[in-house]
Order: sequence, then structure tokens, then C-alpha cells
Amino acid sequence: MSASRKNAITPSRSKDYAEWYQQVIKAADLAELSPVRGCMVIKPWGYALWENIRRVLDAMFKETGHRNAYFPLFIPLGFLQKEAEHVEGFAKECAVVTHHRLELDSEGRLVPAGPLEEPLVVRPTSETIIGAMFAKWIQSYRDLPLLLNQWANVVRWEMRTRMFLRTTEFMWQEGHTAHASAAEAMEEARRMLALYAGFARDYMAMPAIQGEKTESERFPGAVNTFTIEAMMQDRKALQAGTSHFLGENFARASEITFLDQEGKRRYAWTTSWGVSTRLIGAMIMTHSDDDGLVLPPRLAPAHVVILPVIHKDEVRSQVMEYCRQLAARLREVRFHDVPLEVELDTREMRGGEKMWSWVKKGIPLRVEIGPRDVAAESVFLGRRDRPARERESLPLAAFIEQVGAILDEIQKNLYERADAFRRRNTREIDSYDELREFFTPENRQKPEIHGGFALCHWAGGAAEEERLKNELGVSIRCIPLDDEEGEQGTCILTGKPSPRRVVIAKAY
Amino acid sequence: MSASRKNAITPSRSKDYAEWYQQVIKAADLAELSPVRGCMVIKPWGYALWENIRRVLDAMFKETGHRNAYFPLFIPLGFLQKEAEHVEGFAKECAVVTHHRLELDSEGRLVPAGPLEEPLVVRPTSETIIGAMFAKWIQSYRDLPLLLNQWANVVRWEMRTRMFLRTTEFMWQEGHTAHASAAEAMEEARRMLALYAGFARDYMAMPAIQGEKTESERFPGAVNTFTIEAMMQDRKALQAGTSHFLGENFARASEITFLDQEGKRRYAWTTSWGVSTRLIGAMIMTHSDDDGLVLPPRLAPAHVVILPVIHKDEVRSQVMEYCRQLAARLREVRFHDVPLEVELDTREMRGGEKMWSWVKKGIPLRVEIGPRDVAAESVFLGRRDRPARERESLPLAAFIEQVGAILDEIQKNLYERADAFRRRNTREIDSYDELREFFTPENRQKPEIHGGFALCHWAGGAAEEERLKNELGVSIRCIPLDDEEGEQGTCILTGKPSPRRVVIAKAY
Repeated sequence: MSASRKNAITPSRSKDYAEWYQQVIKAADLAELSPVRGCMVIKPWGYALWENIRRVLDAMFKETGHRNAYFPLFIPLGFLQKEAEHVEGFAKECAVVTHHRLELDSEGRLVPAGPLEEPLVVRPTSETIIGAMFAKWIQSYRDLPLLLNQWANVVRWEMRTRMFLRTTEFMWQEGHTAHASAAEAMEEARRMLALYAGFARDYMAMPAIQGEKTESERFPGAVNTFTIEAMMQDRKALQAGTSHFLGENFARASEITFLDQEGKRRYAWTTSWGVSTRLIGAMIMTHSDDDGLVLPPRLAPAHVVILPVIHKDEVRSQVMEYCRQLAARLREVRFHDVPLEVELDTREMRGGEKMWSWVKKGIPLRVEIGPRDVAAESVFLGRRDRPARERESLPLAAFIEQVGAILDEIQKNLYERADAFRRRNTREIDSYDELREFFTPENRQKPEIHGGFALCHWAGGAAEEERLKNELGVSIRCIPLDDEEGEQGTCILTGKPSPRRVVIAKAY
Repeated sequence: MSASRKNAITPSRSKDYAEWYQQVIKAADLAELSPVRGCMVIKPWGYALWENIRRVLDAMFKETGHRNAYFPLFIPLGFLQKEAEHVEGFAKECAVVTHHRLELDSEGRLVPAGPLEEPLVVRPTSETIIGAMFAKWIQSYRDLPLLLNQWANVVRWEMRTRMFLRTTEFMWQEGHTAHASAAEAMEEARRMLALYAGFARDYMAMPAIQGEKTESERFPGAVNTFTIEAMMQDRKALQAGTSHFLGENFARASEITFLDQEGKRRYAWTTSWGVSTRLIGAMIMTHSDDDGLVLPPRLAPAHVVILPVIHKDEVRSQVMEYCRQLAARLREVRFHDVPLEVELDTREMRGGEKMWSWVKKGIPLRVEIGPRDVAAESVFLGRRDRPARERESLPLAAFIEQVGAILDEIQKNLYERADAFRRRNTREIDSYDELREFFTPENRQKPEIHGGFALCHWAGGAAEEERLKNELGVSIRCIPLDDEEGEQGTCILTGKPSPRRVVIAKAY
């Protein structure tokens, strides 16, 4: 590990990106697979990331007028069936509860017993059960808008799982709102999409494109599905959050009606929107490097680790006292809206190994303190946005004064690095041949032509999208919303006129 | 509602306590039954209570060295079987997942498909799945103690459910720890019990007895189960939190072993402890009255509601401006560790109806503001610990200065009221005849002799406990831990010598 060229994670990103991802998670002790198929255990460092995501988003939801509630884990089969597209979309991946107790069979084996009259589905999402409650609660235009959010676990029985990105059970939030008009519901769906994009930018240091999904990629039952799409370091797209304008579809399915100001009964207009623990996967793949996890300071579970460097017993108490005082002073510093989280690592362990363990965990700042630092009233500082071996001495007072600014600078650097990467790997493409070349695996070693986001004119339908998928293994990630230039062009596949470019990429 | 003698909740506590409880929940808009059998929907006012409970306890857990993690919702059948008593305790109430998709049968009905090789149980508690992970993580004494907590939903298929007190799905936290010695694990189990009792006292304003369960009431698989027991206003006991010393039982079942300092392989000693949304039921039944919910200020979702009283349009803007300024100033006040939560209720509604809606929601302080209050720079204050119609005028400045102290006084009053009630209804009983009389339903109208906590000498076993249950419908709630006097006596049932009194009561 201390050899000057070797990195902490094997394999490297360029060697085997998928395996690198697993190794980063392992080295940072974020999570691991559980004995339950497709389910992971989120360990304290990973769960603290989710707690921070949750804390920030929850405050943003409350600021925009939403309140939290909690709805049942189980959905009766009949509810799921109320919206035809919805049930078709989720039927293939539902965990189904069919019994309510266990008993011993004649051979002494424990088997399910007490069959349920109607099986229950473990929620893959909650539109139908929440819709049933909305129908009870909403009577008049005075009850609207109804703006709720739920933090919950959901289950989708995915065949191929990958930690944080796609697991059988995952944690998420799902917002559910009802409105008196289509325009207001659409405004809500777009507002929450913009909120997600702002969260990605300001907290995750992750640029994301706001866009709309094509029909074939829509949420089952939605009229419009909006998405934020981010580029990972393997140049694939990751859908990091979605917001759906559901029109009257779920209101009709669940009979959510209200008396308007003229006394006329009407269907409500609903939305739903969500982000999940997938955001942690997005963060890992946006910022981490061949030395392990890199965390944006505004979401890091801890901001600074203090590493006492003690080679002789006679300096121990002096160094430790200096470290404890430093920790106490740092904890009084507020970084944006939270106090600095400081770790003082007193484990018995080789100094190099200990330092690298924190590099791999992605902590933004590492401070090594030895007798010379004590004597000089200084700190020896390493930053996670710079190479691990690059460290500098700073006067103690200056460090405490500047620590917030340094963290902000790291946050900014991470964003700019990710943004530059995305720009470098985004290209306007105007012919199908060029598109094919852009996504040909054999060109993987030529980054100047291979992969990333292709911005193409498009006027195709589901059949043409299917062709993209089959021939190139790519899909339309979104039709960007901020494309106001409205450049006219010609569809790369059908040759029809097209009013705007779409984003085409390989995707997670 | 405004008739001077009528209360807001029908029936009253004394008339029909069980129905009163449901009506208090409904009138406060805390929760309601869902279409899923035994599952409730927790509405925003109820969920905010849970968020406050969670925020406070989470900080207390972290202060005592615990970290949060997350484990799978599903438990393979084989895991549950590893501990014999454990599976026997939970087998009768498990939701069992047997299929992983749905398909249409030949008659077009949606039916479960894709049978699982091994059924999965929706966690009723997580000892076994967490034990399997602990076995991987713990190798050496250096890995101990391992102190984790999980906030999660769990499912127990109860036959008779009651909102908050016993629901099929509920929210809880479950702490799970592993230690190198029995003494340390026992200390942990007792520490967390004391933490729960302190939380009940300081935040819920609810006195609770710390005690140990008898063998027949132990958690399935535990060596010792500790409990906090509180008295509700119908004088029944409610188990509000439990902490278990699990000995080596689950370590043996899951092979959680470690090399001790002598290099010898040993089983770890584990604990688990939890509280749930049941605490909300306990809070409701401890403090609420015939006018509805009464909330302890330290857990209330909001502390103050401002009610503008506007009878003429020409005073509207003046009154509203005064109210907005009052709200802004109150929001700058910190009450203990949080900013005051202030509601400004501008709904179009009759003044009396509006005021009563907040009485029923249990908000600690109501401030009515009319033109005369504006002119006098005063507020018209109602406190939830006093009769709803009893209000007083206070100078604005004095109110803002004293609001924190008033809330503390309410918190204290609620505790003292509950404590006095419990003392009044707790009695030392020294004969079985007297015990029978104490718990005879026909004596319900004579509160001086009926019901509550009976403190009795006890040296019986499971058979005698069964007799108590069958003959009197009561149980031993706990053997109090703080009974240091160690008074010698004679068991009321067996006549054997007994070293201490136990708490006997009817229970939820």
C-alpha cells in the first residue's frame, strides 16, 4: 500500500469498473451482501450517508409544504390491479405474502400455514394504497392540494442486483400529492424534479440533467415521467430520481374525487416522486477513485479524522492531549447547518494502514499529529480531493479558521471535476453511423470517440427505441427540459424533422 | 361543543375507555385504520410525534456509543429456526413470503407465481439475521463491544389489533449488541432499560417502573427480559419498552464467537432492546382527557397555535400582521434543543370550532388574538394542562419571555399528575382474597378498591401465574429493580417466603 505507485483499490476503474465499484464499497465498509437473496446490509458508514441524505431532503420537502406520513407495507392484490399499466409494470417483480403463520409438518419441518384469503404484495411503490386513503380524505377543493411524503422500504424482486444500485429491498422516499388542476399537479412534478437536481448539485456535487422520459421508459401508469440523469465515471447514465405527473389515472383507479368551487365533482390530479439509496451508488460512482471512496463534504458522515502519530511512548500523552483539544475545537465549528463531525482514531494500528483506511472511507480531511506538530502548533493535513500522499503543514489556528472554507473548496472541486468529465464525454451526434461508432465496445480504449452522452435529434417511436437497445445497447435517457434553444434538426434514425435533441446513453 | 359542560370526546374515559381511546386518535387526526387487515395509516400529526421520539432517542443511542445500520426485511425460514424458543415464540404470527411474482391464471385472475425455494418471513424482530452478520464481523475481542441499532418496520400477525398499541405492522428501533463478557452485556441491557425509563420520564412525562419479567413473560430466547411498565388511566399496565440479556443463546445459534485475549475461542454475549410506535399509544393513554389528546411539550409536533379572531373585515389586516409578527418572534425562541414550532391557523372556520380542533389535537398552548389584544399588545392564552375554557390575558412581551418556562411547567404538571395517579392506584396487597377483590370487575365503580398496580409478595412459578391469569385476568408485570429495601414476606398464593414484592396488574 505504501509503495509509491500502487493504489488502494484493486482492480482500478479502467481495468474492471464493475468490480472496482464492489471493492470501493467493501474498502469503505459501506455495505455488504446479506444471506437474503438480493438484499444488502447497510453498515454504519453507509447508513450515516443515507441519514444525511434523508435529513437534508426531509427539510427541503418540509420547506416546500410537504408533511410526512406512513402507509402500510402490504398492498392487497386487488389494489394493485386497479390501474392496468401499473400492475403490468410491477407484477413480474413482487414479493407475495400468502400465509400468516408457520407450523411443523408431519416430518417436523417448518412450513407456511394459515393461508390468506387475498394474498398481499410487499409494496414495490405505494400509489394504489395511498390512492385509497386519498379517496377517503379528499372531499372538497378545500382539501387540496394534499402534499404528503413517506420514508419507507420497498421491495422489487429484481433478477440481477448490485449493491445500492439495484437491490431487492431498498430504502426510499415517495412523495404523493393531489391537486385541483392539471397545471398545478404538473408544476408540482416539475418543482420536485428541480429540487432533486438542486440536491444532486449542491449536496452530492453531482451534475444531473433534468429531462422527460419517452413513453417506453415511463413509470407504469404515469402520463409524464421526469428524471434526473447523471453520468458515472464509466460514462454510463444513471437515473438518480424521478417525478411523475400521473394525470387523472390513479384518481380514476382509486376514485379520488372532489367538489370544485362550482360544486361539481371532479377527479383530482396526482403526482408521485422519489429518490432512493441508489443515490449512494450514484455518489460512489461519480467521485470515487482508485484509492477508494470520495465523499462530498456536505453529505460525509464525518468531515475530519485526527490521526495521532506516536512513535515513542514518552510523547503519547502530549500528542493525545493536543489531538483531543483539536477535536473539541473543531466540533465547535459549524459547517453550513451542522456541527463538524470529527473522528479521533486511537486504534492500535500501523500509521500507514490507519491513514489509508480513512482514504478508502472517503473522509474529506485527514489530520496527522506527531510531536513536531505539537511543538510547532501545526497540523499535517491531507485532503481527499488531492492525491493521498500529498499533504501540507498548516498552523493550527489557520486550520481551524479555514476548515469550513477548505471543505467548501473540496465540495466545489468535486462538482467541477464531475461536470468537466460529463462535458468532455457529451457530444452532439448527427448520424446513426457516428452513433454506432460512439457506442461500439471495441472503441472503448479510445475515449475521445467512445461512450458517454450522445445528444441526437430524434423523432422515433417505441420501435426505433427498441432498435437502439438491440443494436447498440443504449437507450434514450431523457428529453432535456432545459433545452430552450429548441434547435431544429433531423432524426438520426427516421430522418423525420425533430424539434430538439435527446440524450442517448448506455444506462444502469 | 361550546355548551359549558359538554366535553369534546364522546364517550368519556369513565364511560367507555376503549372507545374513548379510538375517538381521541380520530379527533386528533393521528392515525386511522387502513384497508390492510391490522395495519394503520399514521397521519402527519401522529407521524410527527414518532419523528420526535425517534430524534430524541437516536441522539441518546449515539451518545451511549451506538451506531445505526440496516438489515434485510426478510428472514429465511432456516434462520428463524436456529434458536428453538425463538421460533416457537414467533411462528404463530409470521407473514410469510412464498412467491416472487404475479401472473394471470387461465380465468384472467392475478395469482402468485414464481414459488421461492425457501419461504421468507417478514421480520418480526431481527436477532437471527443480525446474528448471522455478527458472526461474520466478530473475530476477536478487539471487535467487541459491537453496538448497533436499527430503525425499522416489523410485522407480527396479531389476531386482535388496536391502533398504536398492537398493529400487524409497526415501526420500532431494535438495538443489538455483542460483548466479551456476561457482566458487560448485562450492564448494557440495564443501561438501555434505564435510558428508556429516563426518556419516558423526561420527554413523555410518563412515570415507568423498571423491572424484570418472570420466566413466562420473557422474550423468546432471552435469559433475562427487562421492561418498563407504566400505568394507563384505566389503571391497566402497559409494557412500554423492553431490554433483553440474551446470554450466549443467540451467539450459539448463530455461531458468534471471538478469540479472547488469551487466544481462546469463546461465544459472545448479546443483548437486544426496543421501543416502538406503541409509545404513542402510551402517551395518549397517560395524559389525554375527555377533551382529547394532551401532549407533553417536549414531544409535541407543534408547541403553540396562534388563532386570529376576526369578526369584522376592517380589522383583518391589522390582526393578521400582529399574528405573523408573533409567530416570527416565537419561532426564534428555542425550547430545550429545538426551535419552537408555531402554527398560525388561518382557516376559514368558526372561532369556537377552530379552537376546539386544537384542544383535541393536544397542542400545549393556544393563543387567541383579536383587535383588543392588538390594541393592548397582549395575548389571550389557553394551556392544554388546564380546562379548555380557562384562558388568561398576558402582555405580549411577558408571554414571549416566559413561553419556554410555561411549556416546562406544563411538562412538569403532566408528569406529576400521572405520577400522583399511579401512586393513588398502587397498593401493597398481602392476601389472595384482597387481590381478588382489588381486581373484581364489579368493584370497578369503587376506585378506592378496584384495579391498578398490586404490590404483592410472590414465590410462585408458571402454574401460579397461569392461575392469576385465569382467575383474575391479571399477570405479573415485573419484579421491580429499584426495590432495594428487599422486604421479606410471604407469597400471597403459595405461602412460601418471598424476598420482594412484584407488580401485579391487568395489562395491554
